[in-house]
Amino acid sequence: MAQDIRMVTATISVQMAQGPDIVDITRKLRDVLGDAGITEGDLSATTVGSTGSLTTIEFEPGVVEDLKAAVNRMAPPGLAYAHEQAWQDGNGHSHVQAALIGPSISLPVRNGALGLGTWQQVVAINHDNRPRNRPVEVTVIGVGAASE
Amino acid sequence: MAQDIRMVTATISVQMAQGPDIVDITRKLRDVLGDAGITEGDLSATTVGSTGSLTTIEFEPGVVEDLKAAVNRMAPPGLAYAHEQAWQDGNGHSHVQAALIGPSISLPVRNGALGLGTWQQVVAINHDNRPRNRPVEVTVIGVGAASE
Amino acid sequence: MAQDIRMVTATISVQMAQGPDIVDITRKLRDVLGDAGITEGDLSATTVGSTGSLTTIEFEPGVVEDLKAAVNRMAPPGLAYAHEQAWQDGNGHSHVQAALIGPSISLPVRNGALGLGTWQQVVAINHDNRPRNRPVEVTVIGVGAASE
Repeated sequence: MAQDIRMVTATISVQMAQGPDIVDITRKLRDVLGDAGITEGDLSATTVGSTGSLTTIEFEPGVVEDLKAAVNRMAPPGLAYAHEQAWQDGNGHSHVQAALIGPSISLPVRNGALGLGTWQQVVAINHDNRPRNRPVEVTVIGVGAASE
Repeated sequence: MAQDIRMVTATISVQMAQGPDIVDITRKLRDVLGDAGITEGDLSATTVGSTGSLTTIEFEPGVVEDLKAAVNRMAPPGLAYAHEQAWQDGNGHSHVQAALIGPSISLPVRNGALGLGTWQQVVAINHDNRPRNRPVEVTVIGVGAASE
Repeated sequence: MAQDIRMVTATISVQMAQGPDIVDITRKLRDVLGDAGITEGDLSATTVGSTGSLTTIEFEPGVVEDLKAAVNRMAPPGLAYAHEQAWQDGNGHSHVQAALIGPSISLPVRNGALGLGTWQQVVAINHDNRPRNRPVEVTVIGVGAASE
């Protein structure tokens, strides 16, 4: 019996402060799901731009602060970066941090919602040394209520 | 000519010791694939909960030990964590480690199996400071034998 | 109204120098997209083998050098690795580096191209201590021109 597999794409926009800044985008992804009408499947999200990243955390002030400290340990703003020698834009560490965490995430869609833990939120991170309005591309593939 | 794209979802459960604990889930994913009957496509897996992560390694005792040491270097259990000041549950490092590695993975399905290297296994990592029974949500999208 | 969801799989081959080596695979992924005829959807890529990884960066010599330095800080070649005690192949650090960055990535397909930033390229990293010809498995799922 054939399933009616559907796909919906969307772009969400995330206003972010100077990095490292960590913003909860769970509600925006939930809104995409609500509009998509896909109840079971997979949601892929990818940050556009090479100084942003995506992951999940328990979004409470302590973890946010701890994660900022950790990314700054992995690629400290104060180090000498080869990127700086050519570009002098002060964000050599931003590029490295973003590459290490990675630009994309795959999330389960279950019962019309993100199938994550209660204390697990999806976050976008701005690693750049200036505020950024970051697009995040979202692709949802799965089946909807009408096809079940 | 239309393809018969199908989707199967599953939840696997992974019993894990106090973190960092690294468990090979390749066989469980293979079982999902066998039940799904999807022979070519993509398998997405996401750990549910903010102190778990997924990646691939050569699953042999040496690499397992080395990776545990590395995640403890990235976010050492002994540091002062802001999460601790509010929650005192002793797992500030767990949240950071899990966020840095990331909760999800995308794997190729080829010839009815995971299209990975011979010495490349899929692992779930528990970073929490207590044993956990972690759900991992799995979504397989692709084509099956019947549709080829 | 049913969408005509299609899937195309491909294997690209990436010749890489001794690690850490970072190679831009954006053009190869673009070629896969061109052949696939899928204009909107999701592209998943996974490196085959446990000493490779995938991420995105601004591919310019400075960032490439900075990222190499960062992965060698995360898992330095000179440390004592348990993997070495059993295997003596000199690549204990390679396994750890690859596991931390991760083997897979999910990318948006938009207007027949990768929906990334202008200065955001997809890179494969070889962490192994010898040159490798690495396969990367690619799965594209979405809709094509014919179905819009």
